[in-house]
Amino acid sequence: MEGGVDHLAHERNKAQFDVEEMKIVWAGSRHAFDVSDRMACLVASDPAFKKDNRATLGRKELFNNTLRKAAHAWKRILELRLTDEEAAKLRSYIDEPNFTDLHWGMFVPAIKGQGTEEQQQKWLPLANTMQIIGCYAQTELGHGSNVQGLETTATFDPQTDEFIIHSPTLTSSKWWPGGLGKVSTHAIVYARLITDGQEHGVHGFIVQLRSLDDHLPLPGITIGDIGMKFGNGAYNTMDNGVLRFDHVRIPRDQMMMRVMQVTREGKCVRSSVPRQLIYGTMVFVRQTIVSGASSALSRAVCIATRYSAVRRQFGPQNGGVETQVIDYKTQQNRLFPLLAAAYAFRFVGEWLKWLYTDVNQRLQANDFSTLPEAHACTAGLKSLTTSFTADAIEECRKLCGGHGYLCSSGLPELFAVYVPTCTYEGDNVVLLLQVARFLMKTVSQLGSEKKPVGTTAYMGRVEHLMKCHCSVQKAEDWLNLNTILEAFEARAARMSVAVAQKLARFANPEEGFTELSPNLVEVSVAHCQLIVVSKFIEKLQQDIPGKGVKELLEMLCNIYALNLLHKHQGDFLSTGSITSKQGSLANDQLRSIYSQVRPNAIALVDAFNHTDPYLGSVLGRYDGTVYPKLYEEAWKDPLNDSVVPDGYREYIRPMLNNQLRNARL
Amino acid sequence: MEGGVDHLAHERNKAQFDVEEMKIVWAGSRHAFDVSDRMACLVASDPAFKKDNRATLGRKELFNNTLRKAAHAWKRILELRLTDEEAAKLRSYIDEPNFTDLHWGMFVPAIKGQGTEEQQQKWLPLANTMQIIGCYAQTELGHGSNVQGLETTATFDPQTDEFIIHSPTLTSSKWWPGGLGKVSTHAIVYARLITDGQEHGVHGFIVQLRSLDDHLPLPGITIGDIGMKFGNGAYNTMDNGVLRFDHVRIPRDQMMMRVMQVTREGKCVRSSVPRQLIYGTMVFVRQTIVSGASSALSRAVCIATRYSAVRRQFGPQNGGVETQVIDYKTQQNRLFPLLAAAYAFRFVGEWLKWLYTDVNQRLQANDFSTLPEAHACTAGLKSLTTSFTADAIEECRKLCGGHGYLCSSGLPELFAVYVPTCTYEGDNVVLLLQVARFLMKTVSQLGSEKKPVGTTAYMGRVEHLMKCHCSVQKAEDWLNLNTILEAFEARAARMSVAVAQKLARFANPEEGFTELSPNLVEVSVAHCQLIVVSKFIEKLQQDIPGKGVKELLEMLCNIYALNLLHKHQGDFLSTGSITSKQGSLANDQLRSIYSQVRPNAIALVDAFNHTDPYLGSVLGRYDGTVYPKLYEEAWKDPLNDSVVPDGYREYIRPMLNNQLRNARL
Ligand SMILES: Cc1cc2nc3c(=O)[nH]c(=O)nc-3n(C[C@H](O)[C@H](O)[C@H](O)COP(=O)(O)OP(=O)(O)OC[C@H]3O[C@@H](n4cnc5c(N)ncnc54)[C@H](O)[C@@H]3O)c2cc1C
Ligand SMILES: Cc1cc2nc3c(=O)[nH]c(=O)nc-3n(C[C@H](O)[C@H](O)[C@H](O)COP(=O)(O)OP(=O)(O)OC[C@H]3O[C@@H](n4cnc5c(N)ncnc54)[C@H](O)[C@@H]3O)c2cc1C
Repeated sequence: MEGGVDHLAHERNKAQFDVEEMKIVWAGSRHAFDVSDRMACLVASDPAFKKDNRATLGRKELFNNTLRKAAHAWKRILELRLTDEEAAKLRSYIDEPNFTDLHWGMFVPAIKGQGTEEQQQKWLPLANTMQIIGCYAQTELGHGSNVQGLETTATFDPQTDEFIIHSPTLTSSKWWPGGLGKVSTHAIVYARLITDGQEHGVHGFIVQLRSLDDHLPLPGITIGDIGMKFGNGAYNTMDNGVLRFDHVRIPRDQMMMRVMQVTREGKCVRSSVPRQLIYGTMVFVRQTIVSGASSALSRAVCIATRYSAVRRQFGPQNGGVETQVIDYKTQQNRLFPLLAAAYAFRFVGEWLKWLYTDVNQRLQANDFSTLPEAHACTAGLKSLTTSFTADAIEECRKLCGGHGYLCSSGLPELFAVYVPTCTYEGDNVVLLLQVARFLMKTVSQLGSEKKPVGTTAYMGRVEHLMKCHCSVQKAEDWLNLNTILEAFEARAARMSVAVAQKLARFANPEEGFTELSPNLVEVSVAHCQLIVVSKFIEKLQQDIPGKGVKELLEMLCNIYALNLLHKHQGDFLSTGSITSKQGSLANDQLRSIYSQVRPNAIALVDAFNHTDPYLGSVLGRYDGTVYPKLYEEAWKDPLNDSVVPDGYREYIRPMLNNQLRNARL
Repeated sequence: MEGGVDHLAHERNKAQFDVEEMKIVWAGSRHAFDVSDRMACLVASDPAFKKDNRATLGRKELFNNTLRKAAHAWKRILELRLTDEEAAKLRSYIDEPNFTDLHWGMFVPAIKGQGTEEQQQKWLPLANTMQIIGCYAQTELGHGSNVQGLETTATFDPQTDEFIIHSPTLTSSKWWPGGLGKVSTHAIVYARLITDGQEHGVHGFIVQLRSLDDHLPLPGITIGDIGMKFGNGAYNTMDNGVLRFDHVRIPRDQMMMRVMQVTREGKCVRSSVPRQLIYGTMVFVRQTIVSGASSALSRAVCIATRYSAVRRQFGPQNGGVETQVIDYKTQQNRLFPLLAAAYAFRFVGEWLKWLYTDVNQRLQANDFSTLPEAHACTAGLKSLTTSFTADAIEECRKLCGGHGYLCSSGLPELFAVYVPTCTYEGDNVVLLLQVARFLMKTVSQLGSEKKPVGTTAYMGRVEHLMKCHCSVQKAEDWLNLNTILEAFEARAARMSVAVAQKLARFANPEEGFTELSPNLVEVSVAHCQLIVVSKFIEKLQQDIPGKGVKELLEMLCNIYALNLLHKHQGDFLSTGSITSKQGSLANDQLRSIYSQVRPNAIALVDAFNHTDPYLGSVLGRYDGTVYPKLYEEAWKDPLNDSVVPDGYREYIRPMLNNQLRNARL
């Protein structure tokens, strides 16, 4: 806090819970809090990581600046001997997408997941010390979602014991891989394996792209950046790239062979390692995306909440100081559910971490029974949380009125950098269709030997859920979390069963699935919302210390669930899971919880422990000094370098003087 | 079309209606079509209007470029002696926000609406020839929505017969006015009028800001640009500005005096002109915003529809060429309602134009009876159409998968430039609350002398609407547009009555209004959706020539309405306006109409008659040559100027060589 005046102190004094304890809950553990806090301060206090006015930098300057920060980060990681956990946190607080995200987030995990022991021994030490920099080259110009449709070929040449990597068409150009355009020396390239004239599906290959001497692309390789993306700064710090191969040869042992091998003779041999292993990696990557959703959402909510407490507009009737906009019920009704969702996603993200460990342990023990469920559940939660967060960031921007539209609010960049999360690692709609497939299978097996597990366990109680009645009679009855849970279970189960019955009427099940796909997507959403609600409730069953902390979390859980119940009232009513009277009572209850949460709002966003530099928002400043800082920021724009703008003489003056006719423009 | 190959010809051949006739319907009339078409071609064929790679330009270059285009446009307007209608179209096709938008859209209309005859005679000729350039300076750093809270003062000094314009606080700085930052020579400044130590509310004043000789701000005036806004290019071509006054003196006759005058002695005298006149201007401005919504939406939908027909992903099961993504029902369910909404908003926009004329004629005749209704209806439609369009543009971007995230898709800029429409000319939530106030008043007067008029006329049938039953028994029954209309009327009326009853339970009505404001916003939305549906249906009652044109429009009307019915099923069910069985039938019907619309999809977006340069999208190209053009565009990025990026030596090489420890970063 500069100058030491805290314009939000009166808000902080109102809080009815222990903020320091809430910070621990948010972080996940005291240890996690310590690491985060240390790394956040490290970044915030290092001038080399300052967020320059990214919005006004040209592409080249912007990119150069990112390279500098990435190098500096790696230097600090080495100097301070940071652990992997610390290093990852450090990188995330620098808050600029760059090639190291893909190197650590996709390249290294792919080698670990798909490489043999031997391959890991060869490549991991190089990657771990960044002597090579890798990216993940799967998507092509013509194919993203449909990985089996990739066109790049890897043809085995038994004469030389090599694969020939080739881009046969324009649409087979690799397109999008982050870090590819300008930095990576290596890539995991996905290509159709061809041996002896026969196709064997899509596999990963380690391909060196650039010379380690002068960084030039190797012979037969064309690489470039694919150009500007959404927003100022934002993802333009990343060199998403295009890559073409003209018969590029790599040694046979650079095919990732953990699951399938090609022998010296060109025979394909499946190893004893089960294919399902790759799902483990997907569970891991998507779990990090869910965590990321809660982080991004918490930032947007923090900005909008603090600014809503600073901003005053209209009223009161009797004169005097105007109303803080956070006191308007419409503002609360838009903002508080997003605040609640940030916490909800945090807890479901924590739980997914546990799920990943659990899945991994089972895989080690050759138990694949929970894998499909775990896979569907992470796919669904990735889709649900990222779609919600993308919309929520934009809603937070709107909650800030006009000023939210300025880059100095931080919100435009937060949105632009976040939205592709809805598309990469699985398009959100395509993912929901996968979840739906799993749910329909689950329903079709009800009553059989195969009992639904994990997050579908509730389906085992389908008979009860089809006929149960919601017991709510007055608004406060909705405070009962079991009542809420059962309503969400009933809704999800009944929607699943209803669409399964519709499906059964089609002679061709595939055709039915296609025809009913919009309904199926809704079923998946209902199922995934139930998961989030139920994990929030489970969290509340834990022992949570700190004055008022649990009470506040209960309110947030209520808000999260009752807001969804209202938004999707059509589902709840049409399935008879609640009556319309109960729906209206839920709404009344919601409004009354808003009033209880209101005095705690600022403290609830303080608990995210975001530093001002990390937030990067004039509107979201901890001390609430919004106006002087907005004013100060404005003058930094390059257009303000001169009072009279460039172009005045050529364009404005002739216009004013009616002399345009003769002007050459 | 370059090269002449039309990759979408097979789609165009499928169309079952007369596209040329549909173009006329879309444009509004043959005359309107001709003007639009001519102006679009004029812009598209003039190299001076080329959309340079705006995304990569720095702020100064970008702004300079915009000044050039604005000057060139004015030159062409004069040279070609374009009519006002033509000139406005020309400017809109240039498709870059700039100071002339505010000059023509706010400054000139404000003088016409609020200036006396004398004032108009003095200022309009100057403004009409652009010898002065004006902006509209209302919003301040501290106040936007609450205009009565503005802090700038205009104190009358009887000694010199002048007003002293002053900014007493930091928050009183004018903030946001477009065209102010670098270009405008004059502004209409809104300030609190003070005469003889007494306050007389907020009024408009014409203030000269810059010298007409050298463009420098006049003494006592500080002006600057407020800095970067959301997105690349986008609104950064506009110089939204900040403005402070230090006791700046202007002659008394520069107060806008049509409604109230200040005499030589400093007395305030109301003129005979009714205050309500200013509502006329608001109706006008908001009507143009509704038209703008249909235009913006039509562009996004055109891009997403064409690309969805080009893009293939997955299937079919039996091998062969892959499925066009437009054939997926989920894609249709996301896209076609947006297509339908573009048409729906077009028609309601046309109707608003009529409404504006009607209101004006009545005002001339001193008939103010329809004004509150017209005002509420335009406020509500502004809110509804802009919120929907903002979300829809982003949905169109997502419908394009990864490639939608590239600036070359055109969609990121379309979004970034569009979203502030939800905030300016009235924050959308604040507007809906105004609509709600009007609706509650209407309900409270039911049964009295005062009959509901215009778009609230349906309330006059409230008794019937409270008890009527929807007659749908099979899916096709939903094809009956009267059935749809009655369901929407019942829903809106019942929601209004229900919340009015809740309101009545509060001792203090204001408190009740505040407490129930989230519900009230929903009531307003229901009412406004009904207006759009009913105006679409009215349009269909007209004579519409051309093979298949009316049939297609009927399908779109159905899609628009039934999609809303599904999205807001909670409202329809909880009010008993339909049963859940009927809701499910509506959904079935919707899917079947999608199939009928599908072969016409490309032709329906062709009917918007957008040129490729105006669309500015590689994905939305008329000829469907997406991939070669995406590839070509990529290489234009400045990062591709060199194969090895700047920064390689300083940052990447030392990292790879493990030499960072010694590097100075
Ligand atoms: C910022 C960013 C970074 C990226 N980084 C990488 C990277 O590092 N490495 C890499 O390999 N890739 C990367 N990608 C690519 C990304 O993985 C793909 O964009 C993503 O998989 C989506 O595929 P697509 O673009 O082909 O979309 P498409 O599949 O073409 O989607 C277009 C539309 O079709 C719909 N659709 C597609 N299939 C179906 C279906 N079966 N049923 C119904 N609807 C369907 C979608 O819902 C969508 O609406 C990145 C992308 C972005 C935007
Ligand atoms: C691109 C752009 C161009 C502009 N151009 C101009 C221009 O040329 N001239 C000019 O004078 N101005 C201009 N403006 C300013 C614009 O008119 C204001 O931003 C707009 O009126 C909204 O006001 P605000 O920013 O004060 O929002 P606020 O009113 O501060 O809104 C903040 C939040 O408070 C909520 N809120 C406010 N009041 C209430 C209430 N009574 N009840 C419930 N909720 C409430 C809002 O819904 C919102 O969520 C421009 C703005 C932008 C973004």
